[in-house]
Order: sequence, then structure tokens, then C-alpha cells
Amino acid sequence: MNIGVCGEFGLIERLKKCVTAPSDFIIIGISDDAAAFETGAGRVTVMTADAFVEGVHFDLSFVPCRDLGWRAMAANLSDVAAMGGRPTWVTVCLCIPPSCPVESLEALYAGMDAVAAPLGCRIVGGDTTSSPSGLMIAVSLLGEVKRERMTPRGGVKPGDLFCVTGHLGGSRAGLEVLRKRHLGRPLPGHFETAVGKFLRPVPRVREAAAMGDAAAIHAAIDISDGLSSEVHHLCRMSRVGARIEGGSVPIHAETQAVARLCDEEGLAFALSGGEDFELLFTVAPHDAETVARAVQAATGTPVSVIGEAVPPEEGVLIHRDGAWHPLDSSGYDHFKNT
Amino acid sequence: MNIGVCGEFGLIERLKKCVTAPSDFIIIGISDDAAAFETGAGRVTVMTADAFVEGVHFDLSFVPCRDLGWRAMAANLSDVAAMGGRPTWVTVCLCIPPSCPVESLEALYAGMDAVAAPLGCRIVGGDTTSSPSGLMIAVSLLGEVKRERMTPRGGVKPGDLFCVTGHLGGSRAGLEVLRKRHLGRPLPGHFETAVGKFLRPVPRVREAAAMGDAAAIHAAIDISDGLSSEVHHLCRMSRVGARIEGGSVPIHAETQAVARLCDEEGLAFALSGGEDFELLFTVAPHDAETVARAVQAATGTPVSVIGEAVPPEEGVLIHRDGAWHPLDSSGYDHFKNT
Repeated sequence: MNIGVCGEFGLIERLKKCVTAPSDFIIIGISDDAAAFETGAGRVTVMTADAFVEGVHFDLSFVPCRDLGWRAMAANLSDVAAMGGRPTWVTVCLCIPPSCPVESLEALYAGMDAVAAPLGCRIVGGDTTSSPSGLMIAVSLLGEVKRERMTPRGGVKPGDLFCVTGHLGGSRAGLEVLRKRHLGRPLPGHFETAVGKFLRPVPRVREAAAMGDAAAIHAAIDISDGLSSEVHHLCRMSRVGARIEGGSVPIHAETQAVARLCDEEGLAFALSGGEDFELLFTVAPHDAETVARAVQAATGTPVSVIGEAVPPEEGVLIHRDGAWHPLDSSGYDHFKNT
Repeated sequence: MNIGVCGEFGLIERLKKCVTAPSDFIIIGISDDAAAFETGAGRVTVMTADAFVEGVHFDLSFVPCRDLGWRAMAANLSDVAAMGGRPTWVTVCLCIPPSCPVESLEALYAGMDAVAAPLGCRIVGGDTTSSPSGLMIAVSLLGEVKRERMTPRGGVKPGDLFCVTGHLGGSRAGLEVLRKRHLGRPLPGHFETAVGKFLRPVPRVREAAAMGDAAAIHAAIDISDGLSSEVHHLCRMSRVGARIEGGSVPIHAETQAVARLCDEEGLAFALSGGEDFELLFTVAPHDAETVARAVQAATGTPVSVIGEAVPPEEGVLIHRDGAWHPLDSSGYDHFKNT
């Protein structure tokens, strides 16, 4: 069977059946972004891995090597933040085309370290090997979290408020700016905030810690595939519905401006643009303001309430242009056609 | 600078300088096969990662997918065995060419599980993504070891005996058998032991545990690049020399037969053939027999004494054909020309 037939999630389900079932220590196994297992005394270790392939995940013609390293590391750090964890150790496997200069790899490592080290996470080893085609990076990251602080995907309760850190859609806006520059058709403006958001997203590890200190976080996920997709993930795994207020989704002015120049809406970038690496989480209504204030005070990052969880039979809806619409799980582009 | 100029080890040294120095918790960092860090109460966690690239590390035209999975996992398990550790959790990143059938990936996973699960190690997650060219597998493995049981590479003392588990050169012999079959020029014979050693090497995790139970193991390394290279590694990191007795290197009768058919010597396969995944280790002379008997009793695997450690100024020598010769660090093929 071709992979196209079963898709990535179908493939993962099939592969899961090929391996021995995990032991009791494992709290979350294959099919979440990170695995989690008890390591004694209420401590949980989380482990996550991601691969980045040239020509699939990145294009070196407009992403500098240092930023590529930053992004690859940020994606993994963000997975640990989404579990409420503290990243600790990381290994990096590089498959390197023969033409790749050593200086580019030094820049790549410097970028990985620049985002990981300030969060207390150290590169401790890995493997370097040659690649017959493009560059490939596989990052595997360990983290720690206290059992009672874990924020799984399936913990949303009806009545919870959906919240997000920071601003959404900026990464997509930055990508559009860089792409158009690379094609020799630059947009009028610098848009350095959006470009920075795309090239050097800051994983919300400190924000996750501040959230957990302030109140009980019921569920969390990092926004790596656009807000729509992540809202649906949380709802599916928690068996709830959602009502999202389109006007409350936090979108930076630069993102709005870039979207307009691309004949799109800022909200579209937020709903379907990937790799913002902000956190989407839910709390009881009476905790929302406490959490928002605590995160802002500890990190300077704003937290916005964007909607609420409802019983599953009410579906997953978004309010915009004065009416409620179904929120398409694969993102705003599809939703637009309904 | 091109990587060819600085080589793999030069590259690793340069990359090491690009990252923040590891914290005090880390006992062994970048540049060993596995990193090790204290996780409290005398417990040490080891973490290792390896990447396997189609066209560089494997050729699917004569290695079945199930065996490829086995080998990729065995290589990582072997790294943990070499540290005296017990493997626990593993993540797998797959970069998959679009043409790859799902059934092949299921076989790959089944092979990984078949070698890992009996050793108590579970696949807990990872990532699947597409690859624009060949198949790529990155495995990252966690293990545990008690602090006093760790067997680093730098612990050899002059007077120690060098010992190896099992038989050497079998993996290279098996590779030759398969290559010649694939080219339509099969060797006369089946050589199933050698082929099995190449396709499904058993990492010496149980043997490492039995060794550590029986006596103090001063240093250990797994034989992934041929005996010559590993003897030199241990000597360099321990600042000792070695005298290896060529006639004591354990070589299976099938390996001898295949080597003869290839106009080589069995000893050449043992010294320069890679991926036997046996353990090379050293003990005090009075402990050698105790360890050998304990490993044989617990696992059925023989242990052979192959030489002794000497002061560094005596160099690294091998005795064969009635005389002592320098043991070339890059393997027997080079040594032959001296």
C-alpha cells in the first residue's frame, strides 16, 4: 500500500501495531508529539523527536543556517513546553551533503544552542553522517515535568476557556515576506517582527512554567499546524466542542499588513499558517485572568482568551462576520469555501 | 571549508565549540558514542543517537526491511551496552520516499521491536516525514546505568587484559556472502551463521550486565568499526598501549571459510570489518576468568582474552606470523602494506 492511501496518521496507527505495547511506566506513547514516562517520585520524563528534511521542511535559499538550527530546535522545545515540561538534554543527528561547508554547520549548531541554552537545555551528543542528497536534521529532546503539572491534550472540560500565548499568523506572514523577497518581488516594507517570528520563534517554555505556577492548566498543545488544526486536536482528544471568537484571535499589526498585501486576511494566516509555536491551552473560567496576568508579569508575553469549550454535540465553530461557521479542521482555506 | 578537509572527528570538535558547555550533571558529552548525565541517587541516564541513510549505510537491494530495522536498532542498543547500561526508551524518526510501501515500514518497525523488546526497551514515539530521495532512519535511545557500573572508554590500566565477547569478523563475512549473491556470483555454501550475524546482530546488553555483576569492568567499547579501530580508541582515551595476540582473536569457522573464498584472512575481517557489535573490554588479570565464566553461564556467549594493556610508550602492537607488528588504527587493510 502506498503511504498516500493511509496518510501520516494512518501510517502511525499501523506502525504502532508492529511494536510491543508500552509498559505501565509510559503515560503517553506513540501518536502524541512527545512520549511521557514516570521516572519515580512523581517525576515524569518526556521525550520527543522531529526530523527536518531539505526540500520538504526548509529551503536554504532564503533561510540562513543559523536560523534553520534555531527553528529545528525550537520545534522540539515547543513540544516539551506543550506538555508543561522543562527541556534538559538533546541529541542531534545530521546527514550532510558533501558540498556543505563546515561553517554552515557551525552556524546551524550555534543557532540550535542560541535557543536551547537560555532555557537550560544542552546539546549532549548525536551523530554526523553523509547524505547523498540534501541536508537532514533529526533532533531528539528530553525534558522533565512534575506529574501533577503535565498538560495532556485530552484534558479540556466543557466550560473551559481557550487561551493562546502571543500573536498568531506571524510565522506565515514572515515566510511570505521572505519568499517574495527571494522571488525578486519584495513587499513594500521590512516587516522585521514577522520575519523574526518565522526565522527565530521563541518556544514558550517559560510561559508554560508561569502558567502552571499560576493555576491548573487543563490541556495544552503547541501551535505548529495553525490554530484550526490544534483546536480540533484538543477537541477530538477531549471529546468536547468549541466556540472560537474570530475577533479575539490575537494578530500582530504586521501580520495584518502582510496578509492584506497578499490579498488574504490576517485571520487566515492565524488559522492555517503553521509554526507559530505559541501555546493553545484551556483553564477554568475563573483562572483565566490570573494566568494571563502571571504569564505577562513573568515573561512579558500576552495571553488572550479566544473562546470556550462546549459539549461535543455543539461542534467546533468560529464566530466571524457576525455569524457562527464550522471551523474546518484542515484550516481556514478550506473553511472559506463553505 | 569542506568537510573532507577536517574529517568527521574534526567536524565534531568544531561543532562542540559552537554550543554552550555542558553542565556539571553531564559526565560524558559530545564525542563519545553516548552521552551520560546524573539523574540523582547514583543513577546515570545515557542517551545515544544514530542516523542511517540509504545509499550510505544500507542497500535495500539485499537487506530486507525487517533486518534493516533490526540493525539500526541494534547499533544503538550496542552503544548503551558498551556503557554498561540497560536500554529503556527509544524514538524513531523516519524520512520516507514517496514510493516506499507501508508494508516495508511495518517490517522495519517489527524488526526494530524484535531486537529491542526482549531487552526491555520500548519504542515510545518519533516522527514520520517524507524524503525527496532515499529512506533515512534516525534512532535516539535512552538507557540507565548505576554510576559505579559505568564503563567509560578511558578506564584501561596497564596490565589489564583485553577481552571480547562472541566472534569477530562475522558481519563482514555475511556482507560478502550477500553482496556476491546479489551480483549473481554466489559463494559455494550457505554461511547462514555469517549472514545472520550481518543481518541480525545481537547487541550484548545481557552480556554487559553479567560482566558488571561478576567483576569490575575497567573500560568497554562496542565493536562497530572493526577491532583495530576500537583497540586504538580505548588506548588513546586511556593513554595506554596494547599487545594483541592475533591467534587469540575469536573467529568463527564460517568467517574463516568466507574470507578464504574472498582471498582474504579471517583475521582481516575481524580487524577491519565493521558492525560485529561485540564488546571489547578490559579487566584486571585475576578477574578475566571469573567474568568469562559468568557471561558464558548467564548468556551462552563466549568471552576470549585477546591481549593486554601496556605502558603507552610500547605502542599498539599485534602478534602474528611469529612477530610483533604495529596495529594500524584504520584497520587491517592498511596494516597489510607495512
